[in-house]
Amino acid sequence: MTLQNDLILRTARGEKTERTPVWLMRQAGRILPEYRAVRDKVKDFIELATTPELAAEVTLQPVDILGVDAAIIFSDILVIPEAMGLPYEMIEKRGPYFPETVKSLADVNKLRIADAQADLGYVLEAIKIVKRALNGRMPLIGFAGAPWTIFAYMVEGSGSKTFSKAKRMLYTEPVLSHQLLQKITDSTIQYLKGQITAGADLVQLFDSWAGILSPEQYRSFALPYISQICDAIPEVPKTVFAKDAWFARQELAQLNCETIGLDWTMDPIESRKIIGNGKTLQGNLDPCVLYASYEGIRRETGKMLQAFGPHRHIANLGHGLYPDIEPDKVRCFIDAVKEFRFIP
Amino acid sequence: MTLQNDLILRTARGEKTERTPVWLMRQAGRILPEYRAVRDKVKDFIELATTPELAAEVTLQPVDILGVDAAIIFSDILVIPEAMGLPYEMIEKRGPYFPETVKSLADVNKLRIADAQADLGYVLEAIKIVKRALNGRMPLIGFAGAPWTIFAYMVEGSGSKTFSKAKRMLYTEPVLSHQLLQKITDSTIQYLKGQITAGADLVQLFDSWAGILSPEQYRSFALPYISQICDAIPEVPKTVFAKDAWFARQELAQLNCETIGLDWTMDPIESRKIIGNGKTLQGNLDPCVLYASYEGIRRETGKMLQAFGPHRHIANLGHGLYPDIEPDKVRCFIDAVKEFRFIP
Repeated sequence: MTLQNDLILRTARGEKTERTPVWLMRQAGRILPEYRAVRDKVKDFIELATTPELAAEVTLQPVDILGVDAAIIFSDILVIPEAMGLPYEMIEKRGPYFPETVKSLADVNKLRIADAQADLGYVLEAIKIVKRALNGRMPLIGFAGAPWTIFAYMVEGSGSKTFSKAKRMLYTEPVLSHQLLQKITDSTIQYLKGQITAGADLVQLFDSWAGILSPEQYRSFALPYISQICDAIPEVPKTVFAKDAWFARQELAQLNCETIGLDWTMDPIESRKIIGNGKTLQGNLDPCVLYASYEGIRRETGKMLQAFGPHRHIANLGHGLYPDIEPDKVRCFIDAVKEFRFIP
Repeated sequence: MTLQNDLILRTARGEKTERTPVWLMRQAGRILPEYRAVRDKVKDFIELATTPELAAEVTLQPVDILGVDAAIIFSDILVIPEAMGLPYEMIEKRGPYFPETVKSLADVNKLRIADAQADLGYVLEAIKIVKRALNGRMPLIGFAGAPWTIFAYMVEGSGSKTFSKAKRMLYTEPVLSHQLLQKITDSTIQYLKGQITAGADLVQLFDSWAGILSPEQYRSFALPYISQICDAIPEVPKTVFAKDAWFARQELAQLNCETIGLDWTMDPIESRKIIGNGKTLQGNLDPCVLYASYEGIRRETGKMLQAFGPHRHIANLGHGLYPDIEPDKVRCFIDAVKEFRFIP
């Protein structure tokens, strides 16, 4: 089916477009009263994410309410450990918690390579429902966590400021670490291929904890697995967002992907110089700018757009939306992108 | 009094020294059983930090147990808000908590400029006890939080992944933010001058939350206040450690300080290029390397030392010691620094 609005796909592929496309990480979520109404109907976040009709419903909410240029499937990066045999709970206000963690080779051997249809069918089903409802209006973005970030949760067992247990394993058990990373990578490839078959038009890898590794560790334990995934997915454009991995931008530029996501600490002009002209860049407004006045939001958004320039840029925040941002402020950001006129 | 071991001071001032000096952030603390024995005698961390005899005792422990080249006074960066009239509690396993936070101009007006003697006499007293006990063996390092980091806690009220309340104030109330930052800066200058009068031979500013600001915000709300402090303290060498502020290294190099601290994501050779030859660099081994084998620690420490080169480098970790590191692994790091032979 031809998409009515394919701005993001054309921008990802490097075509010149009539304006900069825009979407937001966490656009479907707690900032919307409509989301909270659905969320209140179920026991917890995990029930919401695993019920295809509800996941589809909240995926579609921001399309009309906010006016973005793409939908992103409502899900969670930690469905992969779950699908590999390591379940988790989402504890309100504290985040994910794994009752069991990976500590030994026996633990790694017990894990299976996730089968998209058998283990993650609920996500694929949600994607199909969303695609039918979108009816070609705009693209649907699929996603997964990057292997290092998934590894970090599976070994640490929860969020952490330092992820020192996960990093400890990289230093003390490098062979075991690579075995686990490979199993996560194989599962992620299956999963993303399933998402694409179900209808995802573009996929994004989130390496949320990229920035706590040393550059050398990132080169050994993170980049090779992201690279495998990019190489295995020729079907659709791929975005790699390695938060805080400012030090790896040169290597990220070598990946077989179309778009590199930037966080708000990475200067657009400097990043373009480092990454070169072969990639589309995505980002990177500080999420806290959306606490500013409408005038402030328009000013900061304009500065960002001008710095990236009119082509090969997908406007977004430099991280996910914070839950206490007002929807009107998000709309202001989106409208500011759509209305911006570049100074030649 | 002439110091028997003044390696750190000479290195900070840019002199060539017979070997690279070494100390560790959080060298006095939970990794030592001797520390935990003292800690168990008191109610909480705050009682330990505010009892001069005990603070002095734990400050001195790593001098002999670990064999470092400097002591650092055992204290906390949050004594400054406390001294300005905003008290805090230290909640076991969760971190600092402020029952009241700064929200308005009235809140800022209620705060006083800290008086080192009247409000922070217990730290100065601890410094005097340590100096007497050290008896000229090695330098004593004093420290304070950098104004932005102190501001972040005073507005947020606790630690946070995003410090979004504190950052929100920068965007919504820039004038008020500058007033609070100035008051913190004035207090910090008084405090550091008091530490130096009491005997501190070098002072370090910790900007622990530097990395969550955008480069532009860091330039507006952080650097000018660090600069004021550096300019106001001509008496001793100053170290500025702005964690995760990789994007500000060029500006940090312009400060009136002797040493710039680097975290483990910042490559030594790249950082030297950006910062130039006018500063001493401090750091920057990944704290998680100390989970590795003795051989691994020696190898990684050697690689780091070689990258920094034999002069204008103070060896340290790229962050504070993690509490579950074995003391023998710390000693291995320190010995590796002392025994290293540079490859010309």
